Amino acid sequence: MDPLLDKLKYDDDGLIPAIVQDHQTHAVLMMAWMNRQSVQLTLETKKTHFFSRSRGKLWLKGESSGHVQHVKSIRTDCDADVLLIEVEQVGAACHEGYRSCFFREHQSTGEWKILGEKLFDPDKVYKKP
Amino acid sequence: MDPLLDKLKYDDDGLIPAIVQDHQTHAVLMMAWMNRQSVQLTLETKKTHFFSRSRGKLWLKGESSGHVQHVKSIRTDCDADVLLIEVEQVGAACHEGYRSCFFREHQSTGEWKILGEKLFDPDKVYKKP
Repeated sequence: MDPLLDKLKYDDDGLIPAIVQDHQTHAVLMMAWMNRQSVQLTLETKKTHFFSRSRGKLWLKGESSGHVQHVKSIRTDCDADVLLIEVEQVGAACHEGYRSCFFREHQSTGEWKILGEKLFDPDKVYKKP
Repeated sequence: MDPLLDKLKYDDDGLIPAIVQDHQTHAVLMMAWMNRQSVQLTLETKKTHFFSRSRGKLWLKGESSGHVQHVKSIRTDCDADVLLIEVEQVGAACHEGYRSCFFREHQSTGEWKILGEKLFDPDKVYKKP
């Protein structure tokens, strides 16, 4: 058993939040949830795997889009209940077509401003009818 | 009512994860939880406020240590259920004395290696007996 898995603290649903950061630009790309199995698969394959709370299943990031994340480093925080994963991102992290999921910034007017530009058209990548 | 608060999605406990990033180095400093009130206080005071799940109460980051975080920007992700907050960090973010809470990196041997150095002695800053 990998000591990494022993050390981490999962919540009541068996999940731990994983922050994904670009290893070159240091941009935060996304946050998603992992269970023990997805942490193990991420370690073994060096590609990020998450657990979807809405679909109740494990998923390989990029399995539909090809936009996989190659793992460069894995850190945990002082409480061992959050992961920080540095990756080399293929394509874009966000399913809406942006490089990062954090593409909206709060303005003092109370509005959300979109930062950055779409790198792909989600309808084409995910082949929606 | 600020549209920011309306837009965000809180979990069943009324909480949303907030990732805190250094606005200059882009290092991820910590992740903590906010409720609606702490988001509002963070907006109003421009200093991060969180909700402690273990203590069941609101807290101003730095209220004991003086290590406050001055807010530079607030972003949300595609699902509006995570916040990314860029800050100017006074002192160090981690209560263990490190600049970032993510000071341990997983090694291929299965061990955790400590990165960085302690910037302060927690026993002195928090005046433990």
